[in-house]
Amino acid sequence: MIDLIKNLAITNRRAKSSVIRELLKLTNKPGVISFAGGLPSPECFPIDQLADITSKVIKEKGHLAFQYGETEGTAELKEEIIKLLKTDEAITIKKENIIITSSSQQGLDLVTKTFIDAADFVITEAPTYIGGLQVFRCYGANIISVPSDDDGLCVSALEKLLNNLISDEEHYKMLYVVPDFQNPKGTTLPFERREQIVKLAAKYNFIILEDSPYRHLRYRGNAPSMLYKLDSLSNTISLFSFSKTLVPGFRLGYIVANAEIIKKFSKLKQSLDLCTSPFIQYITAEFLKQGYFHPHLNKIKSIYEKKLNVMLEALKKYMPEEVTWTSPEGGLFLWATLPEKIDTTEMFNDAIKENVAYVIGSAFHADGGGKNSMRLNFSYPSEVEIDVGIKRLAEVIKKKI
Amino acid sequence: MIDLIKNLAITNRRAKSSVIRELLKLTNKPGVISFAGGLPSPECFPIDQLADITSKVIKEKGHLAFQYGETEGTAELKEEIIKLLKTDEAITIKKENIIITSSSQQGLDLVTKTFIDAADFVITEAPTYIGGLQVFRCYGANIISVPSDDDGLCVSALEKLLNNLISDEEHYKMLYVVPDFQNPKGTTLPFERREQIVKLAAKYNFIILEDSPYRHLRYRGNAPSMLYKLDSLSNTISLFSFSKTLVPGFRLGYIVANAEIIKKFSKLKQSLDLCTSPFIQYITAEFLKQGYFHPHLNKIKSIYEKKLNVMLEALKKYMPEEVTWTSPEGGLFLWATLPEKIDTTEMFNDAIKENVAYVIGSAFHADGGGKNSMRLNFSYPSEVEIDVGIKRLAEVIKKKI
Repeated sequence: MIDLIKNLAITNRRAKSSVIRELLKLTNKPGVISFAGGLPSPECFPIDQLADITSKVIKEKGHLAFQYGETEGTAELKEEIIKLLKTDEAITIKKENIIITSSSQQGLDLVTKTFIDAADFVITEAPTYIGGLQVFRCYGANIISVPSDDDGLCVSALEKLLNNLISDEEHYKMLYVVPDFQNPKGTTLPFERREQIVKLAAKYNFIILEDSPYRHLRYRGNAPSMLYKLDSLSNTISLFSFSKTLVPGFRLGYIVANAEIIKKFSKLKQSLDLCTSPFIQYITAEFLKQGYFHPHLNKIKSIYEKKLNVMLEALKKYMPEEVTWTSPEGGLFLWATLPEKIDTTEMFNDAIKENVAYVIGSAFHADGGGKNSMRLNFSYPSEVEIDVGIKRLAEVIKKKI
Repeated sequence: MIDLIKNLAITNRRAKSSVIRELLKLTNKPGVISFAGGLPSPECFPIDQLADITSKVIKEKGHLAFQYGETEGTAELKEEIIKLLKTDEAITIKKENIIITSSSQQGLDLVTKTFIDAADFVITEAPTYIGGLQVFRCYGANIISVPSDDDGLCVSALEKLLNNLISDEEHYKMLYVVPDFQNPKGTTLPFERREQIVKLAAKYNFIILEDSPYRHLRYRGNAPSMLYKLDSLSNTISLFSFSKTLVPGFRLGYIVANAEIIKKFSKLKQSLDLCTSPFIQYITAEFLKQGYFHPHLNKIKSIYEKKLNVMLEALKKYMPEEVTWTSPEGGLFLWATLPEKIDTTEMFNDAIKENVAYVIGSAFHADGGGKNSMRLNFSYPSEVEIDVGIKRLAEVIKKKI
């Protein structure tokens, strides 16, 4: 065999496997209670409804659902998305503003491939979603992090950075932000910060990439408007996903943006996969059309809210006072910060020995920061496991203090 | 809105929409008999079997099928693929040699993204698959075409080219070839040429990218071994698809290659879409496991073979003697060559006026050649439509001679 590995293109050499994927292998040990994954709970999959709908779709629309489809997505699903954004977000769009993607991860790849050349600046929150960092790295982006607090991205720090970059004549292009129940911190960006970001985008001429996979999963409080809604200048591109609200196994998401931009995504998507499975799209459109979506959301929100409350109570009950954590209003994750001297990577093996797992905080930092922090998922483990697992984790931490 | 269109990355600027997609819009005119698409016939979709299997998968494995899955694909589907390649191709592989892809188009993208940097040489047949050209262009490849005859790629021309490139110290990396019932020509590479290509890859140190979406659709004659089977040095990467044998609406394919290479694909696939729909994978694995695949193949091969025969007879009956065409042993397409003075792009509107459509030959040439040729699809139109359509097309051509 010729040494193909030595022939790798720069894109592949830049690509890094997700640390989470490696960690997850360790957490498969029997008896481990894992807060490491980001999986929805299977009890939240609407199995019976999907069985009925799938059978209906195959019988009535099999000849269309099993055929090739349009690159931009099926008209049926786009119509349902338009209605959904109208009722839930007061956002008015047309079909031309939507492209259906094979997961919102594909959305991230499409947007980045469309706009980011090597050495272009992409600004992210610190910490931020690992899958975002992976994509930006693939395309050789210069990733700059802006700190965040309990209200998400610090806009004053962002403005200072933009000022510095502009005086250095640097070429920055995009801000990547997860405004609602952020992965990994669980924080939500308040309305004022959203307005400020939209203004900064207009002033400094950059794209806002708004990633909203968790937005429908709000358990308390009121939702500030989406950045897309606030941005009258179409600088915002928004990514959506059905993975957390319906099922991840469909690998279905969509992008909402200015129609001219959608055309550019479509051109690239042709060479990526021609189109997203029409079969999956017809099933999802029918699920929405039948009115199953909102009752289903209410059901799973009540399940996840209880789990979140159990985790918050367990943290309060078991954790030493030196440990702090965020208090999310929705989503799947919260973020714990330990005393500075504790390195959660070093502590990871101790935790596995005590049969509990988390994701190390540094994985979410482009610069390897956040060593004394961790992400805790509350959607997948049961309520009992959450209580027992947090107790175990507290014991591990206490030994380090 | 800031001028996002001016901010496109080089990859997007390089991307070209498929000419076929544009042409297909014209062929939607009512009454047009279209030989332009590449669609399987919906009568070939095993609707009832898929309805039963899908219902079974949802009931018995919903919690797994609807969850996130491994990036490399589900063990169940990989096991069935291993059996399939063993029985049908006498190829012995392990799970580590397979990665499941969201269509074989994604396979093309993954391989190219993994190995091709801008300015790297990719050698293709002329004519070749448009979707291949689109991907290679996206990554800035230097596409060089080697002519083909009625037996596919001319190996002597390939060897001459490799010799020239090596003496120019050029950096070539990959040969892209569709050995069986090639898209667009319908030709099949004979055994001897396959052996020669494998030897050349070892001598000149390049990757063979073998694209095999149609291989299962053989209507006559014996199948020469796959290049993957002949290549003991693992220089060959093979792409497979379920689009033509099962249904395109699943968007399901797979890559077979050396295990080290599969790892590299997996690393990139994480950032592309995390994984291919486990739901689709479980359904397809069950279809194979139940033994439905080969009886289904026999059924659709008999349908397509009849259509091919009707087209060959109609061409003989109606075409002026100056027109020649290939005589495929399988697949979905054949290739017609007209007198040199006829430009099939110029003739296209005349054909649409007479309610018949084809794909212009130049679309399949990286250098715009093949102006007097066309691709004709026989899988989608009915037998009656094929006869009437070829008659109409012959009339259009006769007026140009």
